Amino acid sequence: MGPGPINVHPRVLRAMSADMLGQFDPEMTGYMNETMSLYRQVFMTRNHWTFLVDGTARAGIEAAMVSLVEQGSRVLIVRAGRFGLLLSEIAERLGADIRTLDLPWGEVATPDQIEEALKVHRPQVFACIHGDTSTTMAQPLEGVGALCRKYDVLSYVDATATLGGVPVCVDQWEIDVVSGGLQKCMGGPPGSAPITISDRAAEFIMSRRHVEAGIRGTDQTNGGRSRIPSNYFDLAMIMDYWSEKRLNHHTEAATMLYGAREAARVVLEEGLEVRFARHRSASGALIAGLRAMELSIFGDDAHRMANVTGVWIPESVNGEAIRSVMREDFGIEIGTAFGPLAGRIWRIGTMGYNACKPNVLTTLGALEAALASGGFNCSRGAAIDAARAAWR
Amino acid sequence: MGPGPINVHPRVLRAMSADMLGQFDPEMTGYMNETMSLYRQVFMTRNHWTFLVDGTARAGIEAAMVSLVEQGSRVLIVRAGRFGLLLSEIAERLGADIRTLDLPWGEVATPDQIEEALKVHRPQVFACIHGDTSTTMAQPLEGVGALCRKYDVLSYVDATATLGGVPVCVDQWEIDVVSGGLQKCMGGPPGSAPITISDRAAEFIMSRRHVEAGIRGTDQTNGGRSRIPSNYFDLAMIMDYWSEKRLNHHTEAATMLYGAREAARVVLEEGLEVRFARHRSASGALIAGLRAMELSIFGDDAHRMANVTGVWIPESVNGEAIRSVMREDFGIEIGTAFGPLAGRIWRIGTMGYNACKPNVLTTLGALEAALASGGFNCSRGAAIDAARAAWR
Repeated sequence: MGPGPINVHPRVLRAMSADMLGQFDPEMTGYMNETMSLYRQVFMTRNHWTFLVDGTARAGIEAAMVSLVEQGSRVLIVRAGRFGLLLSEIAERLGADIRTLDLPWGEVATPDQIEEALKVHRPQVFACIHGDTSTTMAQPLEGVGALCRKYDVLSYVDATATLGGVPVCVDQWEIDVVSGGLQKCMGGPPGSAPITISDRAAEFIMSRRHVEAGIRGTDQTNGGRSRIPSNYFDLAMIMDYWSEKRLNHHTEAATMLYGAREAARVVLEEGLEVRFARHRSASGALIAGLRAMELSIFGDDAHRMANVTGVWIPESVNGEAIRSVMREDFGIEIGTAFGPLAGRIWRIGTMGYNACKPNVLTTLGALEAALASGGFNCSRGAAIDAARAAWR
Repeated sequence: MGPGPINVHPRVLRAMSADMLGQFDPEMTGYMNETMSLYRQVFMTRNHWTFLVDGTARAGIEAAMVSLVEQGSRVLIVRAGRFGLLLSEIAERLGADIRTLDLPWGEVATPDQIEEALKVHRPQVFACIHGDTSTTMAQPLEGVGALCRKYDVLSYVDATATLGGVPVCVDQWEIDVVSGGLQKCMGGPPGSAPITISDRAAEFIMSRRHVEAGIRGTDQTNGGRSRIPSNYFDLAMIMDYWSEKRLNHHTEAATMLYGAREAARVVLEEGLEVRFARHRSASGALIAGLRAMELSIFGDDAHRMANVTGVWIPESVNGEAIRSVMREDFGIEIGTAFGPLAGRIWRIGTMGYNACKPNVLTTLGALEAALASGGFNCSRGAAIDAARAAWR
């Protein structure tokens, strides 16, 4: 019950024990096409270019950044948590001219702040994190894509922590590139990063295209812009691989593709709206329970993610000792924190397969028992009753 | 029965249907340590730094190159096939000063040629491919590491196609960094890249270390050399994650780790020498069968890999039509080829779980039937008899 990876849906686990197919076997390329179609629905987009990057969620982030941000180009990054810092640390390595909109951990940027920063810095690329698990807050994105288009800026958002649990409305928000992961609300394992790319961003990326020697055919022209400084994360080459050209790049990680495909099937069979509501109910009940235990919740209710909740560690207890009791006596993991919040909050996930009554109620019961044995007084049983009442 | 990915060992498939563990759960970090120990045995090395890169085999190649090759530094690359070209294409993107030892596809470099090139070019890094599936040839590496040390050069070899099927003697060869994959002789799926790093290479890489903002503690000093231009492939950060410090980087792809661990356990339970002999027997029998069919084998017997065999497509048949018959009527895939060999040879794998009598014999039978229906005359049954005799 940490901030991810979380328990994987049993159907996804089973799908990942299927044997390999040759990478250009029509059955395999059929699965690739089907996966593109499933993730268009998950991302709520009509973007043709919707596929998987082979690596963890961080691989999707790096692929987006390295393909969109040229050396010396100006990038505006919202930094309000650990993963905002990751975006600027990747941009630094790319030699970008980095401008930042910095906020204290736990806050989000307003549309006015974003527009002002776009006007002042005039970047080529805007980048931010949708839900940052390090702070448990979600950046509102309604209108942000339109603002970026107004100033002729390509927009990129990482939605690893929210995809499949909280609305990620790619087309409605008009964000150009959105990346995700499986190990949070998608109920899958870490190791595959779904990504979606608008036509205008794809056109930009294709202008940086250079086909690899040894597989270059006479019809494979290269674009005019600077070459993408990574081969593995060259989205132009990865698009060629996922296109009907099937130009060989990496060897698709078939097991992860099976898992990503099955995770999307499970999500869509449940229905996105039903699933979002289930995440809201589970985190709402968790919060009601935590408050009934007289614990304080971190951050502002208005921008809280529905799938991971920060809770202040009471001063009278040793946070790590409580986590150990929960893990050792109850087999339940809750998360620690990073940076300015390290040692100050726990992070409890209600994601994917775990966003359900049994897991929320047993977590509350275990936390209560661990706190009581750690010397923190609370009314026994109140948390579970409050959580059940919240569900009703 | 192509050049990989190939059928995965059933134990590996089952291991990959296990549920997730928290990334810092002691059970998970225990599996990580165990995986390091298993791959030291697979790589025949005592290198402490032996772990997994989260991505396909190509991710391991890029991680090695980006961590070893600084912008402007001189790198000597042996290019005798598609994957040698890949090394120079990655080095180009890194802004390296590239020197090459170019050979026709199907040839290998002699120690004298390598020493001469080291003397002429005086590189900082030497890089080559051990077994290049595009040519089916293995580069002899005995003495190559010692030559590199004589000229104070860091050496890097990719052994994706040979690891677990053909001897990869990291310590005996004194190669500094060796990367691999699972989807060839290891009998696993694509998506995880084992890598091993000598202490002297680790020292160099650590001199390029820069700890990520947001998780930087006061004891985390940075090295003096140029920063590695990728975050995801920064081997210094990945080593910190696999070290007892457990500094957070990516979220380990647990499913792939389970698969990599189980693949190594299967390999080591069989025994490396027994396994190498099984690959030699299987490819020897395959070649005997192909020759009994009056087909010509590509390349030179002395440097042929024991796990993938190139065979000239007879001029009288349509190579792709034969492959289709084999796939559709027999459920057997054999490989096509790249670059100068495209359309001229087929590549047939005898790797991992597939390096066994039933698979070799049914492949020969299927190829014979497909060739006969395609108008190529050969003595029916001769291939299978010759292959069985070779095994005896």
